[in-house]
Amino acid sequence: MTYLKDNFLLTNKTAEKLYNDYAKDMPIFDYHCHLPETQILANEPFNDVFEIWLKGDHYKWRLMRNYGVDEECITGSASNKEKFTAYCKTLGTAFGNPLYHWSQVELKEFFNCEIEINEDNAETIWNWCNDYIKLNNITPQSLIEKSNVSHIFTTNEIFDDLSTFEKIAKKDYKFKVIPAFRADKIMNVDAVGYDKTIEKLEGIVGKINGIEDLEKAIENRLQAFIKVGTTASDIALQCVYEIAEKEDADKVLKAAIKGETISEEQAKVFKGYFTYFLFKLYAKYDIRTELHIGAMRNNNSKMLAKLGLDTGYDSIAEDNSIRLMSKLFDRLNNENSLPKTIIFNLNPKMNTEIMTLLGCFQDSSAKGKIQYGPAWWFLDNKVGMEKHLEDLTATGHIATFVGMLTDSRSLLSYPRHHYFRRILCNYLGTMMENSQMTQDIELVGKVVQDISYNNSIKYFDMK
Amino acid sequence: MTYLKDNFLLTNKTAEKLYNDYAKDMPIFDYHCHLPETQILANEPFNDVFEIWLKGDHYKWRLMRNYGVDEECITGSASNKEKFTAYCKTLGTAFGNPLYHWSQVELKEFFNCEIEINEDNAETIWNWCNDYIKLNNITPQSLIEKSNVSHIFTTNEIFDDLSTFEKIAKKDYKFKVIPAFRADKIMNVDAVGYDKTIEKLEGIVGKINGIEDLEKAIENRLQAFIKVGTTASDIALQCVYEIAEKEDADKVLKAAIKGETISEEQAKVFKGYFTYFLFKLYAKYDIRTELHIGAMRNNNSKMLAKLGLDTGYDSIAEDNSIRLMSKLFDRLNNENSLPKTIIFNLNPKMNTEIMTLLGCFQDSSAKGKIQYGPAWWFLDNKVGMEKHLEDLTATGHIATFVGMLTDSRSLLSYPRHHYFRRILCNYLGTMMENSQMTQDIELVGKVVQDISYNNSIKYFDMK
Amino acid sequence: MTYLKDNFLLTNKTAEKLYNDYAKDMPIFDYHCHLPETQILANEPFNDVFEIWLKGDHYKWRLMRNYGVDEECITGSASNKEKFTAYCKTLGTAFGNPLYHWSQVELKEFFNCEIEINEDNAETIWNWCNDYIKLNNITPQSLIEKSNVSHIFTTNEIFDDLSTFEKIAKKDYKFKVIPAFRADKIMNVDAVGYDKTIEKLEGIVGKINGIEDLEKAIENRLQAFIKVGTTASDIALQCVYEIAEKEDADKVLKAAIKGETISEEQAKVFKGYFTYFLFKLYAKYDIRTELHIGAMRNNNSKMLAKLGLDTGYDSIAEDNSIRLMSKLFDRLNNENSLPKTIIFNLNPKMNTEIMTLLGCFQDSSAKGKIQYGPAWWFLDNKVGMEKHLEDLTATGHIATFVGMLTDSRSLLSYPRHHYFRRILCNYLGTMMENSQMTQDIELVGKVVQDISYNNSIKYFDMK
Repeated sequence: MTYLKDNFLLTNKTAEKLYNDYAKDMPIFDYHCHLPETQILANEPFNDVFEIWLKGDHYKWRLMRNYGVDEECITGSASNKEKFTAYCKTLGTAFGNPLYHWSQVELKEFFNCEIEINEDNAETIWNWCNDYIKLNNITPQSLIEKSNVSHIFTTNEIFDDLSTFEKIAKKDYKFKVIPAFRADKIMNVDAVGYDKTIEKLEGIVGKINGIEDLEKAIENRLQAFIKVGTTASDIALQCVYEIAEKEDADKVLKAAIKGETISEEQAKVFKGYFTYFLFKLYAKYDIRTELHIGAMRNNNSKMLAKLGLDTGYDSIAEDNSIRLMSKLFDRLNNENSLPKTIIFNLNPKMNTEIMTLLGCFQDSSAKGKIQYGPAWWFLDNKVGMEKHLEDLTATGHIATFVGMLTDSRSLLSYPRHHYFRRILCNYLGTMMENSQMTQDIELVGKVVQDISYNNSIKYFDMK
Repeated sequence: MTYLKDNFLLTNKTAEKLYNDYAKDMPIFDYHCHLPETQILANEPFNDVFEIWLKGDHYKWRLMRNYGVDEECITGSASNKEKFTAYCKTLGTAFGNPLYHWSQVELKEFFNCEIEINEDNAETIWNWCNDYIKLNNITPQSLIEKSNVSHIFTTNEIFDDLSTFEKIAKKDYKFKVIPAFRADKIMNVDAVGYDKTIEKLEGIVGKINGIEDLEKAIENRLQAFIKVGTTASDIALQCVYEIAEKEDADKVLKAAIKGETISEEQAKVFKGYFTYFLFKLYAKYDIRTELHIGAMRNNNSKMLAKLGLDTGYDSIAEDNSIRLMSKLFDRLNNENSLPKTIIFNLNPKMNTEIMTLLGCFQDSSAKGKIQYGPAWWFLDNKVGMEKHLEDLTATGHIATFVGMLTDSRSLLSYPRHHYFRRILCNYLGTMMENSQMTQDIELVGKVVQDISYNNSIKYFDMK
Repeated sequence: MTYLKDNFLLTNKTAEKLYNDYAKDMPIFDYHCHLPETQILANEPFNDVFEIWLKGDHYKWRLMRNYGVDEECITGSASNKEKFTAYCKTLGTAFGNPLYHWSQVELKEFFNCEIEINEDNAETIWNWCNDYIKLNNITPQSLIEKSNVSHIFTTNEIFDDLSTFEKIAKKDYKFKVIPAFRADKIMNVDAVGYDKTIEKLEGIVGKINGIEDLEKAIENRLQAFIKVGTTASDIALQCVYEIAEKEDADKVLKAAIKGETISEEQAKVFKGYFTYFLFKLYAKYDIRTELHIGAMRNNNSKMLAKLGLDTGYDSIAEDNSIRLMSKLFDRLNNENSLPKTIIFNLNPKMNTEIMTLLGCFQDSSAKGKIQYGPAWWFLDNKVGMEKHLEDLTATGHIATFVGMLTDSRSLLSYPRHHYFRRILCNYLGTMMENSQMTQDIELVGKVVQDISYNNSIKYFDMK
């Protein structure tokens, strides 16, 4: 039997009470993830536990590589069962790693399986889960429903076909699926094949000769997204760049459309202007802007060539752009064009400098108008979440926090919301037990419920 | 009733004993604050709790803005009571924020009010405190005396009139009020209206044609300060700059006197030289030098135009100047001109790099000659103080630490000394309970008393 | 009697069991230290406790300077006993400093002395330890044997005479002594007297006219080291530099050989190329590469002139070279020339960005091929180790970790391994007690033993 108990991560009675009476049963609003909407609509049953649990999960791949597992058993031609076994072996002693917890919790929540994950038990778990899948007809929708999810914001590029969302909206699912708007492929002007990306967009909106056309095309697409319910957008950047002039961005764009190679400096010019443009556009339509900064991508070019993007070769960047972030927000604010914004920062050493900057742009247009997003990616673990809560409360107002998301490609990631809620309840419950805050559990319970669900519903204007 | 108990922040018996038997009753030496000496001398009674507790406190304003309170109820035309109520509402769920603790402690210590701060109780607290103020004739001096303060170092610009200090010295107050010398307005050569600042100084010391005149004027003013008891000075910089040549600084100064616009590069030249000059001057007169680094100021230019400086729109800077700090200290040390110095650093990620650098410039001229100051401003909270103590003890000698100050414009800030002492006692008491240090409570108690009061008295050469 | 108890740093029963049943009796493999091999071979008995405990220990010197001790009593002409007494006085209240623990543990483990270190007890301890030394004939070898050390990797420059290692190998000591290969004196092309360094190398390998000759000479020396058992190498850099072209490095080298002054820019060119060359060479011979980054050296030039290198005037650097580290590793990896590597980083704020980068270069050639080394130098303390373990487990796989070393010039440093093991056992034991990981103590105990000893034996290919 696994080490998991009902009071997992809850170290005192008040924390347990907060979790059980207030947090546990709140629905989930996953306001940023990478689930494919087509998979949800198609609702194909899964064949085995590998397909649901390991396939495509580069978090798990990294850990296996660290443990010296051969790439054949990670992304190679080994069988599903061999890969599954290699992962169980890896996980058996990965104490303290978030996957050590998540994986065990996922087996329990989705397969009713409480066997401890390790090499010895791999075969038993393989059989148990596969039997469970067959007996219970596990599908994408059944996983979402079991997780009590009310809303899912997928992340879609601006040329994505939106008809799937229309189809889903007509079904009587217990949950809504809405796309967040993302123009990252347009942002990345220095990417190989950028001219083809522009052609793809032209297929929808017509000829793009320069920045004016591009801006119109993007606004046009945003309007289409809004028609299917969009209230959120997303920008991912290694860091914030200096705001450039529109005409300079235009020159870079034109060069890129011609297929010319774009230098790092040119890319900065385009990205600097384009980020500013997007924020202004999002403010105009009251679209919340999620800004992800701090990832250094594709460090291992050999494996990039072999496996492609998002296969476990990214890391935490150190580019510090706090002065530029200040300038960007100040200019937008002066132009009455600073939208509701959530900053996701991957480098924990920058928590407080960013948090205190955000505190300079709050106003009465919303509670917590400018949000510091939850611990993300490499920080999405117990240590990262606890530091996040400590830094957030020290510099801001916890009751306005919009809380957790999954940022995941996997349908099994919803327990991360419970993981977060346990840590939140333990954080508050411990302060209550230590007489460092009010003893009014109703009041604290309400804040827990708000952070778990209500705040994000309000912030993203869902009913 | 509030959650506050006698053992607030003290998690074990040894910590309680250290606090109650050694720390609690030590006097307070507030060696760096921004209290107006004229307010102390005038000693006008307060009219209501808003005047004492909220007026001018930009820490509180920031939190209210984060909570979505309208600016009208923060700095606008709403009534004192409306603003007070809005703050109580904000604070009710600001769990973990330092204001959540401080505000509650302030009500208890100064108004004997133990009602929990929240929206429901706002009216009751308003009445309670206002009655208390009237009944007890609360004045600046009564607040200082109640707090058992022995010395206050106000922060004064070099052209400030010193006669108030002379007047105070002639009274038989139970506390001393002495100005710390600050030349920041002279440092900020790129500030709007710098030529007027120089004219103001000229009004006292005569014509200033260049750097030679300026240096003489400053030395002249420092001597005047020393006559009223000054032993400390203060410099605030976003970061340390490269030491520039005197003749280059002279050129910048002359341009500024003429009212020319000073570029960022020119400002760096002037500040780089002027910082070096000030340190040398302070060393000559054995004046302790407090150097505050790491604030990025006035991020929100719209609100700067509306409300002015110090209204809650500053944040933590990331400029890392550790190499330049090393060069500055090394040169001063080589010239036998490194004064006793306290570094206040606002960016916690730089704690250990600065602390270990300071360790390279210690010598037998004083215990802890070069100090790493206590957790400051955005770090002046439980998390920041605990990290400060952990980093300080790991890299230095805790028994030499000069301890806490308020850095505050508010007469209600003295409980921060108690807050700090509780955290200090809990830190040491917990190590004692865990057998990680001596069990000799007399010895530890003496260190607690030294850090609470005696070390700063000795360091600043007060009797 | 001292505060030290058997369960020092172990806060619960499981932690105690892990330490006592699994960690305590494991041998020690000190895979990176600065012990002089000649001292081990000579095996001269010590004269007094000062000689073993204080002489040459710049960690202790720094703390004494912080406490205001006169340099005469640190490195000056005061007697051994006076210096010893000054240190005891300093240590008595240095709560939380790693020396406070280490020094007390050293007295207990090596002199059976449990008297608490402070001013009052200095005389008694002085006598006790000196009596103990005389009665027990304490020598370098007896200290090593008492510490249950199986292997020592000393750090040797490439021109060091290797005959001492041959002599030691012929003895029947219970431990092996093997040199790690270090070319730092060749790396530091901008050091004063670099031409003499090259001459010294020429004395062994013949004329060096340029980079080709130098590379051959280094490979030649590496082969000589390998003959005496070397499997490890070491590089110390303030940060990682851009890989330069060989011909540009050649030009810098030639200028340096002529005795020309080398600029900072020239030095970067040479170091950038030379680092790349060394990694490739080490990969060719399967030599593990230890890379130490993050120290800013010799901040106090006055004391450098007086006392020389390594006397307590270094600090933590902030140069962030994560992009360049990514490029270096990526290029080596593409050229199949990335050796097993251990990164030692001195700036804790960079832990996670480096750790996540290392995760991009793991493969099946070893478990934990690219290691993030243990908390080092200024981080080699309770806070630093705990943060290291938290960050390491959050981003990597703890069971592959090669664990602790001393990096010390002192024969009394071996208890740091026990200190580390206690913290490791407490970290894991606490998670077990809190039901945050498996309850299988055999499994966890095996991981503890692996980290304590077995992993490093395997990683460095010792039998």
